Amino acid sequence: MSHNTFGHLFRVTTWGESHGPAIGCVIDGCPPGIEFRQEDIQDDLDRRRPGQSRFVTQRREPDQVKILSGVLPQEDGTFITTGTPISMMIENVDQRSKDYGEIAKRFRPGHADYTYDVKYGLRDYRGGGRSSARETATRVAAGALARRIVPGMKVRAALVGMGEKEIDRSNWDWDFIGNAENPFFTPDPASVAVFSDYLDGIRKNGSSVGAVIEVVAEGVPAGLGAPIYAKLDQEITANLMSINAVKGVEIGNGFEAARITGEENADEMRMGEDGKPVFLSNNAGGVLGGISTGEPIVARFAVKPTSSILTPRKSIDKDGAEVDVMTKGRHDPCVGIRAVPIAEAMVACAIADHYLRHRGQTGRI
Amino acid sequence: MSHNTFGHLFRVTTWGESHGPAIGCVIDGCPPGIEFRQEDIQDDLDRRRPGQSRFVTQRREPDQVKILSGVLPQEDGTFITTGTPISMMIENVDQRSKDYGEIAKRFRPGHADYTYDVKYGLRDYRGGGRSSARETATRVAAGALARRIVPGMKVRAALVGMGEKEIDRSNWDWDFIGNAENPFFTPDPASVAVFSDYLDGIRKNGSSVGAVIEVVAEGVPAGLGAPIYAKLDQEITANLMSINAVKGVEIGNGFEAARITGEENADEMRMGEDGKPVFLSNNAGGVLGGISTGEPIVARFAVKPTSSILTPRKSIDKDGAEVDVMTKGRHDPCVGIRAVPIAEAMVACAIADHYLRHRGQTGRI
Amino acid sequence: MSHNTFGHLFRVTTWGESHGPAIGCVIDGCPPGIEFRQEDIQDDLDRRRPGQSRFVTQRREPDQVKILSGVLPQEDGTFITTGTPISMMIENVDQRSKDYGEIAKRFRPGHADYTYDVKYGLRDYRGGGRSSARETATRVAAGALARRIVPGMKVRAALVGMGEKEIDRSNWDWDFIGNAENPFFTPDPASVAVFSDYLDGIRKNGSSVGAVIEVVAEGVPAGLGAPIYAKLDQEITANLMSINAVKGVEIGNGFEAARITGEENADEMRMGEDGKPVFLSNNAGGVLGGISTGEPIVARFAVKPTSSILTPRKSIDKDGAEVDVMTKGRHDPCVGIRAVPIAEAMVACAIADHYLRHRGQTGRI
Amino acid sequence: MSHNTFGHLFRVTTWGESHGPAIGCVIDGCPPGIEFRQEDIQDDLDRRRPGQSRFVTQRREPDQVKILSGVLPQEDGTFITTGTPISMMIENVDQRSKDYGEIAKRFRPGHADYTYDVKYGLRDYRGGGRSSARETATRVAAGALARRIVPGMKVRAALVGMGEKEIDRSNWDWDFIGNAENPFFTPDPASVAVFSDYLDGIRKNGSSVGAVIEVVAEGVPAGLGAPIYAKLDQEITANLMSINAVKGVEIGNGFEAARITGEENADEMRMGEDGKPVFLSNNAGGVLGGISTGEPIVARFAVKPTSSILTPRKSIDKDGAEVDVMTKGRHDPCVGIRAVPIAEAMVACAIADHYLRHRGQTGRI
Repeated sequence: MSHNTFGHLFRVTTWGESHGPAIGCVIDGCPPGIEFRQEDIQDDLDRRRPGQSRFVTQRREPDQVKILSGVLPQEDGTFITTGTPISMMIENVDQRSKDYGEIAKRFRPGHADYTYDVKYGLRDYRGGGRSSARETATRVAAGALARRIVPGMKVRAALVGMGEKEIDRSNWDWDFIGNAENPFFTPDPASVAVFSDYLDGIRKNGSSVGAVIEVVAEGVPAGLGAPIYAKLDQEITANLMSINAVKGVEIGNGFEAARITGEENADEMRMGEDGKPVFLSNNAGGVLGGISTGEPIVARFAVKPTSSILTPRKSIDKDGAEVDVMTKGRHDPCVGIRAVPIAEAMVACAIADHYLRHRGQTGRI
Repeated sequence: MSHNTFGHLFRVTTWGESHGPAIGCVIDGCPPGIEFRQEDIQDDLDRRRPGQSRFVTQRREPDQVKILSGVLPQEDGTFITTGTPISMMIENVDQRSKDYGEIAKRFRPGHADYTYDVKYGLRDYRGGGRSSARETATRVAAGALARRIVPGMKVRAALVGMGEKEIDRSNWDWDFIGNAENPFFTPDPASVAVFSDYLDGIRKNGSSVGAVIEVVAEGVPAGLGAPIYAKLDQEITANLMSINAVKGVEIGNGFEAARITGEENADEMRMGEDGKPVFLSNNAGGVLGGISTGEPIVARFAVKPTSSILTPRKSIDKDGAEVDVMTKGRHDPCVGIRAVPIAEAMVACAIADHYLRHRGQTGRI
Repeated sequence: MSHNTFGHLFRVTTWGESHGPAIGCVIDGCPPGIEFRQEDIQDDLDRRRPGQSRFVTQRREPDQVKILSGVLPQEDGTFITTGTPISMMIENVDQRSKDYGEIAKRFRPGHADYTYDVKYGLRDYRGGGRSSARETATRVAAGALARRIVPGMKVRAALVGMGEKEIDRSNWDWDFIGNAENPFFTPDPASVAVFSDYLDGIRKNGSSVGAVIEVVAEGVPAGLGAPIYAKLDQEITANLMSINAVKGVEIGNGFEAARITGEENADEMRMGEDGKPVFLSNNAGGVLGGISTGEPIVARFAVKPTSSILTPRKSIDKDGAEVDVMTKGRHDPCVGIRAVPIAEAMVACAIADHYLRHRGQTGRI
Repeated sequence: MSHNTFGHLFRVTTWGESHGPAIGCVIDGCPPGIEFRQEDIQDDLDRRRPGQSRFVTQRREPDQVKILSGVLPQEDGTFITTGTPISMMIENVDQRSKDYGEIAKRFRPGHADYTYDVKYGLRDYRGGGRSSARETATRVAAGALARRIVPGMKVRAALVGMGEKEIDRSNWDWDFIGNAENPFFTPDPASVAVFSDYLDGIRKNGSSVGAVIEVVAEGVPAGLGAPIYAKLDQEITANLMSINAVKGVEIGNGFEAARITGEENADEMRMGEDGKPVFLSNNAGGVLGGISTGEPIVARFAVKPTSSILTPRKSIDKDGAEVDVMTKGRHDPCVGIRAVPIAEAMVACAIADHYLRHRGQTGRI
């Protein structure tokens, strides 16, 4: 990956900070002839948008995407991709300059303030710079197109744990995730009350908490990926690790695989009724030797708690003075919630890229 | 990452299968003027070599590396890199053709046999093809050079868990890892007896078991990495995920971060006695916002149990017939053990690459 | 090069068509701390802008660049780069939909209409799509930043031939190029009358003509480039060949080198009065073995005549019908004129990229 | 292009110097299932081999290629590619150490001695380092595979000019190029006597001379390439410019296009008798807007005279002393001759890469 680009044939370059005029992305290598509606992108964007419940920040950012190139507008209002770069832009409506005062000089613990300063010798202290959660909107836009490249692919994600609380997997209901009563992207209806109480407590304490998200991609044909340095699971992992605050990723049974035996772990095979191979389990998470098996691809990742908290923490400033830093203002008590649609997008992009690469090398799709 | 290349400025391309004449790598972009001895590479290679204890396979592969280009031999037998591509080759001495019989057609559960066949339409059934553990020798050779690029950097790894057993971290002793009585790369002397008994039982059952490895890179200057799609921790993760059988990676406190609060997780800062910033903890694992903090970089990964086991497992063959597959011959009961030096190499390569990239973009080293 | 990106450490991605809402570019990898004024970019853009003489088309496109990210605005109105991606956008003010009628179906000879259609299966017939001359504005914007990366570098270009006419090199005056009386970027004052008469004739006939441009980069330090597949002259050549209508590129004495002997061609060396090596000639054009010598880098390229002409030419349409195509409307009789500032930008980008790559690999700058 | 790699999906990495143990290449991304014989590669290698006439150097280098990975040997002695990296190696049989004496310190005019030294701070003075003509053998080996990727493609090259002498194009006979009486790869039988006399004179004077080579690729499907920064003609040009001593490249009518009018230059189109579009001329050289038209692709390039000549030339040494340099030993009086098979290989690689990229993005092949 280059610094601000990911993918090889389906290449996404993003740009922008939370406090400049706009953010955006350029998608290069999208196949021609892909039909989509602006709403396809907007719907995904709206899912990650702040201001939807008391558990996510209330800034009013409409996140209205503008498509600037690479498409042919059709008479019915839809678009067709032309094969040339697709530029999408989201203007920052709420970028009024304010007094950053001490924040401009102080390094907030858990943030990238200190490391930016060391790396670049200067830093855009207005908001989180490139590390702003806002940047992720552009990934979601790219993912909305990536989803359409692999025929029959469906990529969905769910929050499966928050701090000390976990869902009950026996209650898993994908349809519940889009439910208006569900502010957590949890697939377990029974977990809503638990998470709500828990997070209210966290929020009232000015604290924050982490989360675990699971992404599942179904309908991915067998054969995508590569044996060594472009393994499908490796690139999915890299894409997920590029999301802010992610500290770990696992594929299939992940760290559990380290604790069990070879007999328990190996997924056995049989011929299905339709004459196609089937796996009797999916510990592998849909990838063997870096190449997709045709089973659902399953990835899970950990998001650290929001670093902006009301409790004062020890830090230093640019001049080396020791200070206490407390982050005022509203902040998500659990940034992991909003990572759900972002994760879907990043996984969709990784798979779409490998779909095109596989077609390029082998011609077998 | 391209299919068989990793890195951007320090680029490593590997080639070869376990049953061809040789394996090797080409390192492109190595700085000129790096001095090294052939033994520096050979020592690292010897650490991952099979045949060192009853817990790793007994094939006799001397793993003698030949350096074919990119160096100026000095009178004292050392080498100096010239800045041109360094080609290293290891001949496969034990590649005699044998009767692969049924294996050529059958898909071994947990192996990449089925996925290779679907992807490429054919497959080199002699050994594991590109997925052979043997390929990792070339990574170790590359890593031996990468270690020399970042002045003062020390990258070490240790096995911290095997199946149901874990080390006692309070016993951690880096020096014990190279001890002749330690066949496990464990840093805990007390764990040797535990792991030995446990693994003997696994081995006698014809079974296998997974492992967890921890890699620590010390002496990495602050400022390496990038905020978004080339995060230092992301590329370390990708490099580790490219090792065969790895199913999960975490940085710093990793998945634990998802379970704790923002106050617990944020690493506070103070000025050290030497006038340099210090962190009071290292939950971040040495990386904030994708950029190194100057603290030790800590990564941990899970290796699945060896897929080759003596217990018959259900599978199919190339013609769609349902078969039972049992892998005869000697196999490591825990492939994770040998992953320790490979992990060090992959982490060293990721950091060396970012060292050069940082110097290129900013000139601040 | 990827499809719409060039450069390795100084990476430029461009997007946009002449008839969409905007065009733009994203510059990734720009060093932090580079100071510039918006005017630096705008001045270069204005040099390539249509509407400046009767020899270039009269469309009114203000080409007003907006800088959307990657910079810190200073109190004095200047900018400092932050090291994050710099997004620049130029809105297309004159993009009103018109009736493209037959053009939508017909393949204009010399244009990419037919090849786009074959490649993508569809094509944006509104203007030249990605091949529009308008796209080159974004390169000029990127080049304006690239110029500032290599300390002391000056990149200038001049038109040295137009159709059958050539300049008199003994009259070469760089300062004359910016002269208000010089609509041709010619360095030879005496050539203006010659080119004017010649081009008036061409224009009145509804015809067009090609041109030869020479680019000279001074102040480039010795040591930039690479011996084999990233030769400095090779990447300069590739960058120039990516400009529309360019059909040939040569470095130094170029094709002349094929016609002379080794004694005539080799540039001899002596020590200069300042104790630095000097070359007694520069047939090599400032590059030996792909690496800069410290002498001026000299490249020359041929631009074909504008394909849009008033004379009807035989062609076919999308349905395979044979048609005659005549391109109405105003068109530059010599598109080569406008290529001059674009060429400067592309050469500046190639050298800036190699400056950073050299610093990355060797640390010797 | 990376420093020692070219191509995107069909990627070739080369390594090695003329005076190390071996040279070689790694081809990554080759489609699986390509059948070839070792002789296919060896035949191409033999065509560029020194020692075939009095006009090329007499060193005895058998250039025997070894295929080390990425293939399945078949019972009939042929190979099938597996889709994994193909490593090929050619051992340097004649690499005995000799006394380089003054050459180790002196910068030969026209060679890259000075620039290597400035760039890397040290240099492998044994032979030409990476700039050795020997490196090109590995490109020829890669090209032999590339030729097999695009069905029906035929890539041939011919020497069309040498110093002041040119062929008579009306005598063009492709079949004559492989004729045993033709030491020049000229397509004009009548030119052999002319070139022989001319080059004998040059050789006896201890001088050297340049050449112009033309490459023609037939059977390339329309639609390969990209509109902007990965134009097919641009990547062909870059590949040719990467060959040592090449100083200029042109596509189709090239520099001639700058001298003619739009009517003369535009290639008209009609429907052919087979219902397929045909072009009535091919000034474009088979590429419009960076994308292949289906017509033959035509490129031409200039090779400078061999820099190693017997006439003493002024130079300096590493310590800054002014010296005269005369290159003893046998050298090709016209290195351009040997560039012919290399050029074919480089053009074949560029087209094969774009064939796979086109298939990847569009699925239209």
